[in-house]
Order: sequence, then structure tokens, then C-alpha cells
Amino acid sequence: MSQTLPVTFRVSASSVGKMRCELDVSLEDPAGGVRESWQMATDEGDFHGGDGTAPSPLAYFTGALAACLMTQIRAFAKRLNVSLDGVTIEGAAHWQAHLSGRKPYTTEPLGFDLDVKIDSNASTAQLAELVRAAKKGCFIEQTLSRTNVVNHQLIHDGETIPIKTD
Amino acid sequence: MSQTLPVTFRVSASSVGKMRCELDVSLEDPAGGVRESWQMATDEGDFHGGDGTAPSPLAYFTGALAACLMTQIRAFAKRLNVSLDGVTIEGAAHWQAHLSGRKPYTTEPLGFDLDVKIDSNASTAQLAELVRAAKKGCFIEQTLSRTNVVNHQLIHDGETIPIKTD
Repeated sequence: MSQTLPVTFRVSASSVGKMRCELDVSLEDPAGGVRESWQMATDEGDFHGGDGTAPSPLAYFTGALAACLMTQIRAFAKRLNVSLDGVTIEGAAHWQAHLSGRKPYTTEPLGFDLDVKIDSNASTAQLAELVRAAKKGCFIEQTLSRTNVVNHQLIHDGETIPIKTD
Repeated sequence: MSQTLPVTFRVSASSVGKMRCELDVSLEDPAGGVRESWQMATDEGDFHGGDGTAPSPLAYFTGALAACLMTQIRAFAKRLNVSLDGVTIEGAAHWQAHLSGRKPYTTEPLGFDLDVKIDSNASTAQLAELVRAAKKGCFIEQTLSRTNVVNHQLIHDGETIPIKTD
């Protein structure tokens, strides 16, 4: 039986201190309400004006990328009857920033690498099939592999204004 | 003076417990070595076979998306001489999963919304310019707005095999 399941996360972020950002994140229950919620914070090192009280946003992003694939490898191993003795992932996320004096800089991604080491009695062909299935089931990888729309609204002085990309 | 700065994060992820994933994440110093490093963990709730000992990968991803924009709004406010009294962001990340019995499921992103509320004496036009600049400077938003390559290798039984997407 085929079925489509919505997966929606919500976040409330507040500016605190110099560059610290405090976050309430929740997973919606498809039946209504909140299924799970978490509190976390980000900060920046002193080279970016912060106090280093928490990981940076990109540290969470890079950790999430590796962990999302890891989770689906483990979840789908059960569905594909593959036994795993241990999985490690070594990954890298490459970006660059284009600086021009004091003006706001621009950024771009250069690429992402994930090396997946699996200890298992399964054949290499079975494990390659498992990793391919995990890529297709990894929400973050599927997001990175296509062009996404990020909608923005600015709320200021009682006005709500859509922000269009140039 | 224009300049291009590489920004590279590395991650080592290990499978622990049922679905817990322990992560060492680091920011490379462009001059060599490690500039900052963090330890963090992810887990899943019991509906996905985990023990709920840590936030899920998508919770970190959603938090990172809001926090990355927040950070650049605050950093670029200084560069654009805009004074901020406080910033909050309410965001949502929408995905769906296509399930078919016990087979590994597939996933896709549906869209991302970020509502940015700014308390400031600046004009709404100045703040809209600030948010537009922050979008262009936000590493995660720039990643989401285009198609990215995620390279995978499987390491098993002494072999290293590139995993191609179907």
C-alpha cells in the first residue's frame, strides 16, 4: 500500500547576546500538535563577532547531513535484511565566501563528500544498494540535490512584507 | 579589495545504540589545522526506532537554517549601519515521504518558510535590503537555492567504491 506522509519541522529563533541564537525546534505530529520538541542554541567564534557559547549553524548543518544519511542506512538495513556491525561516516562540506571590503559578502556551496564505512558480513553489492536507498530516503540529501524555494517575510512596524530574491 | 575565502567543515559520525549517532564536527582554519570543533549527537524518537536521547538530524537542520539567516542579519546590520533592537525568526521546513509497505521509502522537500520579525528604528526599506543581503550571505540558503553534488564512497572489506546515483 502506498502512502504519502508529511514531515514538518517548525523553529522559533531569538537573537541573544552578540551572535548567539536560541532555538525552539519541534516536529509536528501528522495527527495534529507537536510530536517532539528540542531547545538548542548556536553561536559564532570571535572572528565572526560571537562568544563561542554553542556550535555554529554550519556545524549543525554538517552534522545533520552525515547523521541523516547514517539514520537511513540503519533504518533501511532492517527493511533490506542487511546486518550491520558498525557504520562510520567521514564527511566534508565545502563552501566559499566572496568578500569585497566591508560590504555584505556573498556565499556559495562547492560540494559535499560522504565516505561511508560499513562493517558487515553482507556483500559489497548489497551494501552499495543500501547506501543508494539511504540517499533516496535521506531528507537532507534529497533537499540538497534539487533547487528549493525559501520564502521570506519581513515583519516590522506592524507590516508584513514578502521579500523577493533579486 | 575582493577576496574569496574557503569555508570547510568536516564531520566524523559513528553509529551508537539503536539509532543514536555521535558526531565530531570541525571548522577548518584556511591557514591549516582546525579553527573550532564541537561534539554533538542525534537520535530518533521511538516511532523511528530510536531512544530520543538527542535531537533528530532534521531538528538540527531546521534550527541551522533559521540560525544561519539570523547570524547574517546581525553581521550585515553592522556592515550596513542598521541598528537592531531584536530579531526573531519563525520558520517551517516541509518535506514528505513516499511509503510503500516495508520497502525503503523515498523523500522530497516541499519548501521552507522564514518569517523575520525585526525591532529597529530603521525604515522597512532598509530592513528589507538587510534581509536580502543576509539571504545572499547565508551559506545554508545559498545551498538550498541550487542543485548540489553530494559525492559518496562506500568503504567495505578493504575496498573503496564510488556510489553513483541511479
